[in-house]
Amino acid sequence: MFLTRTEYDRGVNTFSPEGRLFQVEYAIEAIKLGSTAIGLKTKEGVVLAVEKRVTSPLLEPSSVEKIMEIDEHIGCAMSGLIADARTLVEHARVESQNHRFSYGEPMSVESTTQALCDLALRFGEGDEESMSRPFGVSLLIAGHDENGPSLYHTDPSGTFWQCNAKAIGSGSEGADSSLQEQYNKDLTLQEAETIALSILKQVMEEKVTPNNVDIAKVAPTYHLYSPSEVEAVIARL
Amino acid sequence: MFLTRTEYDRGVNTFSPEGRLFQVEYAIEAIKLGSTAIGLKTKEGVVLAVEKRVTSPLLEPSSVEKIMEIDEHIGCAMSGLIADARTLVEHARVESQNHRFSYGEPMSVESTTQALCDLALRFGEGDEESMSRPFGVSLLIAGHDENGPSLYHTDPSGTFWQCNAKAIGSGSEGADSSLQEQYNKDLTLQEAETIALSILKQVMEEKVTPNNVDIAKVAPTYHLYSPSEVEAVIARL
Amino acid sequence: MFLTRTEYDRGVNTFSPEGRLFQVEYAIEAIKLGSTAIGLKTKEGVVLAVEKRVTSPLLEPSSVEKIMEIDEHIGCAMSGLIADARTLVEHARVESQNHRFSYGEPMSVESTTQALCDLALRFGEGDEESMSRPFGVSLLIAGHDENGPSLYHTDPSGTFWQCNAKAIGSGSEGADSSLQEQYNKDLTLQEAETIALSILKQVMEEKVTPNNVDIAKVAPTYHLYSPSEVEAVIARL
Amino acid sequence: MFLTRTEYDRGVNTFSPEGRLFQVEYAIEAIKLGSTAIGLKTKEGVVLAVEKRVTSPLLEPSSVEKIMEIDEHIGCAMSGLIADARTLVEHARVESQNHRFSYGEPMSVESTTQALCDLALRFGEGDEESMSRPFGVSLLIAGHDENGPSLYHTDPSGTFWQCNAKAIGSGSEGADSSLQEQYNKDLTLQEAETIALSILKQVMEEKVTPNNVDIAKVAPTYHLYSPSEVEAVIARL
Amino acid sequence: MFLTRTEYDRGVNTFSPEGRLFQVEYAIEAIKLGSTAIGLKTKEGVVLAVEKRVTSPLLEPSSVEKIMEIDEHIGCAMSGLIADARTLVEHARVESQNHRFSYGEPMSVESTTQALCDLALRFGEGDEESMSRPFGVSLLIAGHDENGPSLYHTDPSGTFWQCNAKAIGSGSEGADSSLQEQYNKDLTLQEAETIALSILKQVMEEKVTPNNVDIAKVAPTYHLYSPSEVEAVIARL
Amino acid sequence: MFLTRTEYDRGVNTFSPEGRLFQVEYAIEAIKLGSTAIGLKTKEGVVLAVEKRVTSPLLEPSSVEKIMEIDEHIGCAMSGLIADARTLVEHARVESQNHRFSYGEPMSVESTTQALCDLALRFGEGDEESMSRPFGVSLLIAGHDENGPSLYHTDPSGTFWQCNAKAIGSGSEGADSSLQEQYNKDLTLQEAETIALSILKQVMEEKVTPNNVDIAKVAPTYHLYSPSEVEAVIARL
Amino acid sequence: MFLTRTEYDRGVNTFSPEGRLFQVEYAIEAIKLGSTAIGLKTKEGVVLAVEKRVTSPLLEPSSVEKIMEIDEHIGCAMSGLIADARTLVEHARVESQNHRFSYGEPMSVESTTQALCDLALRFGEGDEESMSRPFGVSLLIAGHDENGPSLYHTDPSGTFWQCNAKAIGSGSEGADSSLQEQYNKDLTLQEAETIALSILKQVMEEKVTPNNVDIAKVAPTYHLYSPSEVEAVIARL
Repeated sequence: MFLTRTEYDRGVNTFSPEGRLFQVEYAIEAIKLGSTAIGLKTKEGVVLAVEKRVTSPLLEPSSVEKIMEIDEHIGCAMSGLIADARTLVEHARVESQNHRFSYGEPMSVESTTQALCDLALRFGEGDEESMSRPFGVSLLIAGHDENGPSLYHTDPSGTFWQCNAKAIGSGSEGADSSLQEQYNKDLTLQEAETIALSILKQVMEEKVTPNNVDIAKVAPTYHLYSPSEVEAVIARL
Repeated sequence: MFLTRTEYDRGVNTFSPEGRLFQVEYAIEAIKLGSTAIGLKTKEGVVLAVEKRVTSPLLEPSSVEKIMEIDEHIGCAMSGLIADARTLVEHARVESQNHRFSYGEPMSVESTTQALCDLALRFGEGDEESMSRPFGVSLLIAGHDENGPSLYHTDPSGTFWQCNAKAIGSGSEGADSSLQEQYNKDLTLQEAETIALSILKQVMEEKVTPNNVDIAKVAPTYHLYSPSEVEAVIARL
Repeated sequence: MFLTRTEYDRGVNTFSPEGRLFQVEYAIEAIKLGSTAIGLKTKEGVVLAVEKRVTSPLLEPSSVEKIMEIDEHIGCAMSGLIADARTLVEHARVESQNHRFSYGEPMSVESTTQALCDLALRFGEGDEESMSRPFGVSLLIAGHDENGPSLYHTDPSGTFWQCNAKAIGSGSEGADSSLQEQYNKDLTLQEAETIALSILKQVMEEKVTPNNVDIAKVAPTYHLYSPSEVEAVIARL
Repeated sequence: MFLTRTEYDRGVNTFSPEGRLFQVEYAIEAIKLGSTAIGLKTKEGVVLAVEKRVTSPLLEPSSVEKIMEIDEHIGCAMSGLIADARTLVEHARVESQNHRFSYGEPMSVESTTQALCDLALRFGEGDEESMSRPFGVSLLIAGHDENGPSLYHTDPSGTFWQCNAKAIGSGSEGADSSLQEQYNKDLTLQEAETIALSILKQVMEEKVTPNNVDIAKVAPTYHLYSPSEVEAVIARL
Repeated sequence: MFLTRTEYDRGVNTFSPEGRLFQVEYAIEAIKLGSTAIGLKTKEGVVLAVEKRVTSPLLEPSSVEKIMEIDEHIGCAMSGLIADARTLVEHARVESQNHRFSYGEPMSVESTTQALCDLALRFGEGDEESMSRPFGVSLLIAGHDENGPSLYHTDPSGTFWQCNAKAIGSGSEGADSSLQEQYNKDLTLQEAETIALSILKQVMEEKVTPNNVDIAKVAPTYHLYSPSEVEAVIARL
Repeated sequence: MFLTRTEYDRGVNTFSPEGRLFQVEYAIEAIKLGSTAIGLKTKEGVVLAVEKRVTSPLLEPSSVEKIMEIDEHIGCAMSGLIADARTLVEHARVESQNHRFSYGEPMSVESTTQALCDLALRFGEGDEESMSRPFGVSLLIAGHDENGPSLYHTDPSGTFWQCNAKAIGSGSEGADSSLQEQYNKDLTLQEAETIALSILKQVMEEKVTPNNVDIAKVAPTYHLYSPSEVEAVIARL
Repeated sequence: MFLTRTEYDRGVNTFSPEGRLFQVEYAIEAIKLGSTAIGLKTKEGVVLAVEKRVTSPLLEPSSVEKIMEIDEHIGCAMSGLIADARTLVEHARVESQNHRFSYGEPMSVESTTQALCDLALRFGEGDEESMSRPFGVSLLIAGHDENGPSLYHTDPSGTFWQCNAKAIGSGSEGADSSLQEQYNKDLTLQEAETIALSILKQVMEEKVTPNNVDIAKVAPTYHLYSPSEVEAVIARL
């Protein structure tokens, strides 16, 4: 009685007879092609760790930015289309700065995440800020505000969830299992660093070096680890 | 003489020869995939209860928000696409605040529901606030105004009905039958809590815990139950 | 030489080779799925009666609004998509209020009907007030102005006719025949109430109760009957 | 070498290989489904007569308006989609009033006709006043200005012609032949009334009564005949 | 290797693989269906003559306007869709009047022709003045400015050429051959009138009368011949 | 694995799997249907020569303008769709005049060429100045500025090259070969005139006369040769 | 279960079921058809070298600009569609000048690259600055700011990477291998020039001359080598 699934999946924003939005589901597939990123929340702060996929020895590893600062109390790790992520991050930065300017206080992590997801939801609507397709990127947003540390996970549908720990990208399935085994709420920040990197190590095909992973923390301010700081975490594995 | 049904169902906003709007009907299907939500109106106030589907132990249960405050005298439970629901709720919040600002009094529950449904109806029109597809979400709107407590049910077509009790989402069929058996107008608020949760328990596959259900009441102001308050209701089952 | 009929019926606003607009004709089909509504004009005023289809005992009958006030001297009954009707009625209310404000007098019933039909005609044009498809609703507009009582019938094409009596919706064919037999211009308002309800009774599958019908009159101002007033009419059948 | 005719006829505004605009030709077909209207120009003024098709005895005959006033010196009869005609007439009324306001004199009949045809030509262009399809209506515009009486015929392509006598609608073919036989420039207005009605009588299936025909004249001002005036013309047949 | 020709001809403004614009070519076909028009330039001025195709004896011949004044020093004859021609002529009139107002002198014939062709070229662009399809009309523009008399020929592509003599419309092929035989630069205006009408006579199926042809000259101002002036030219044949 | 070439060539602005833009390539084909134009740069200035294709003896040769002035120090020859060329030239004239007005000096030849190519590149974008398809024209732009004489060649993709000599249009292949044989940088302007015309003579089917070729030079100001000046060059062949 | 790949690749901005954007991938193919460009970063500055493909001896080699200045401290080499590159470069120039004007200091190389990539990402969105298709060009952006010399590589997806050395265009695969063998961070600028040109020599089919290659450096300001400077580098090979 219905057409087969494939007849409904090319309209940018059309429901299939079962009530599904296929372009959003395909954008979620784009993330499964991306590099792996991991986030863990501890009482001391949040740790983010990403695989960098430096495809050529002549590429500057520091320019493969997969962890970015949104505001001094918020950072994010990404997997999927990097140019899409930059647009979302830039939008969040502007919203966050406007909030500081208007209210004289930092924007809460949830509001920042909501603002970013609002933009993601509005694709296909033709106004100035929105894209003509879903954003092909997932983010792990780490922050610290008056509610303490928090970690959010966003997907291309514009939905977000608060997590204690989460992995995204091509290795996320295995990494999520490992996180569920190893995570507990009483981890120290240092233990979280070690777990994040050891799980990343399992899903990466190469040896882990300061060149092919990045680590950042928000505790309570955003800090991207220097190569020697990354080296120190690697040494602890 | 007519084409088969499937030929008419992809235009975002086109009538079939029988006078049907298939994209709206498919959006209604999206809700049948959603988690179950239940609302009951009593003379003391309205109770909302939802299933939360916390898919991972590392997800923060409180961030799976399926009950939201619209104004201090109005709350709503949702089933379907959460990001769509957030847009509708945000629109209703703004309308409600504008009303308070302009008229110095709370907006009536029906007017708030109407404002929210106006936005839902206008999909596919390309103006700034509307979506390019139907909103894939159903809401149970609970409120209290000068007419006393009230409960509204909205669907993706932008239609709304006032109900004494209503269930939406994947378990709605069974839950609606149970409600018809157990509901009467003289229920106390406490009895309504118990009925809502006992019905939710029937349609959920997991054991009911404060982590996988949320309860709220508007009596006469919105209040989302704390885990211990939920625990207390569970204990009464 | 021509394509078959079905090839022309999906363009929102396209003529077929025989000069027909199929999307409008399909929207008219939507009304044949709707509940039945009946209007009768007498010298004392106009009576409107509608079937309400209360699908669940938990639904608040008064919230299934199929008769609405446009201005104190105009009301309307509807059949088809209720959310579409609300948009047309809201448009008519604004036009009517603007007229009062600008000219210090009530808008005539015909002008109000014309304003409402102008909006219905403009579908598919992409401006702010119009819809991207025909409005799937028929209205019976009852009013009283300096020309005395009047009853208008509108359809999705934006056309309107003045009638002495008219039925719309799924039972309209049989109801129209009964009206032609029973109607005469010298009916009292009370006789009109009785005829309207007795015809409605024939086309409804359920027993007629104050819960599943609504009655209103404009004589010379709009008045929606209370359940007891409806009960009184039922008692006269 | 060319596609068959049917491949070119659904684009709203596209030439076929032979240089034809099929959507306009199909709109012209819509008029062949319409009721018949007749106009005759005499030295004393212009007569318009139309068939009204009152489909139900409960319909108010005077509300089936197929002859309308544009200005006090211009009226028009129509055949085809009535809602489309109302839009054109309303546009012509506004232009005509603006002209009076700006220049302190009535607009000439030709300029009024041209203004109305400009709107008809601009379909498919997406600006505020134009339609997204051709207007499915033909008009006979009768007027009187400093050049004396005049009669114009417009069609959905936005073209117009000045005529001495003309019939439009489903019976136009036969009526035009009769007009050519019976028309001469020295007819009195009364003779023109009689000819118009006798021809209308031939093409109508029912008996002619004041209920199912309308007559108007512009001589030199617009006047719609009352039922008794129509009765008087019928009596002369 | 390429698709057949027919696959490229329905996009309003798309090149075929051979670099052709088929919609423009089809609009040019529309002109081949039109009535014949002829223009001749002499040292004394320019003569325009057109066939009028008065399809009914009840049509007012003077209202079949196929020669129009643009400004007092410019006139034009047309073949194809008359409503399209009126839009182009109206645009040229406005441009010409604006030029007079801004510069206190008449607009040159070439600039007027260019302005009219600019509008013809811009079809399919969606701005306010342009059409959504090519203009289906060819014009012969006759004028007189500081460079003396001139005759321009425009086509639906927005291209124009200056000519000494030119025929357009259904009889243009034969008429052009006759013009090449009979034209020389030393013709008097009277000889040009005679040649124009004798060639028109050859391509028309009916007898030439003041009712079915129009003649105009620009020498140096625009003048449309009265029926008796046309009769005088006919008498000379 | 890929669709055949023909599936990608109708989107106005879409890449094929091999990274090609077919609509632009087809517009380039339009130029191969055009008349031949030749440009040569010498130290004294630049010479442009074009074939005119006067299709009828009644056409005014001077109105077949295929060489146009852009500013007093810039001229251009064209091949392809003349109406498109006029739009580009008009745009360049406005840009050039604006530059003079704003900076009090002539615009450089390269900047003028760039401005013209910017417009050509922006087709399909729907803003006011751009076309909805590629411009089907190639230009040879000759100019003289503070860098001395220069010759630019533009194509429908909006790309331009600076050349010493170049031929465009249907005879360009043979003409380019001849240019490569005969061109050297020390040619006098007179020698360049002779070469241009002798090559044009080879590719034209008719005898070369002042009626069917145009010659212009920019040395250092734009000058279009009079018929007698062209005659003089012909005499030198 | 999925359609074949080819069904998803023509929507300008649509995800395939595997999460791929084919139009962007096809634009990347356009670059593989382009000429080869090479960039090397040294401590002294950055060297850019490009193949010029001078297709005719009559083409002015200096007008085949494949290396361009963005600001005095930034230059770029390009491969792919040159007209697209000019648009991106012009945008970057304006952004860079605006930055100088607003902040009184040069824009950083990364910010300039980001601004350019923002424009590349926004294709298909219909606003004024963006294209209706991806930009079919890759750039190597060389600059020098307070962080010292830097080299960026951009692609049509709007993504950018910082590199020590990189080749783009048709010969990029072989050239990248050679770069990985020969590059080290301690190269002098002169050694970098020699490596760039020797690798370019390998991938070009013709003999290397100052006519068919361009070299530029940013050390610390942009300088495009004169033919004799290029000759000097060739001599060192």
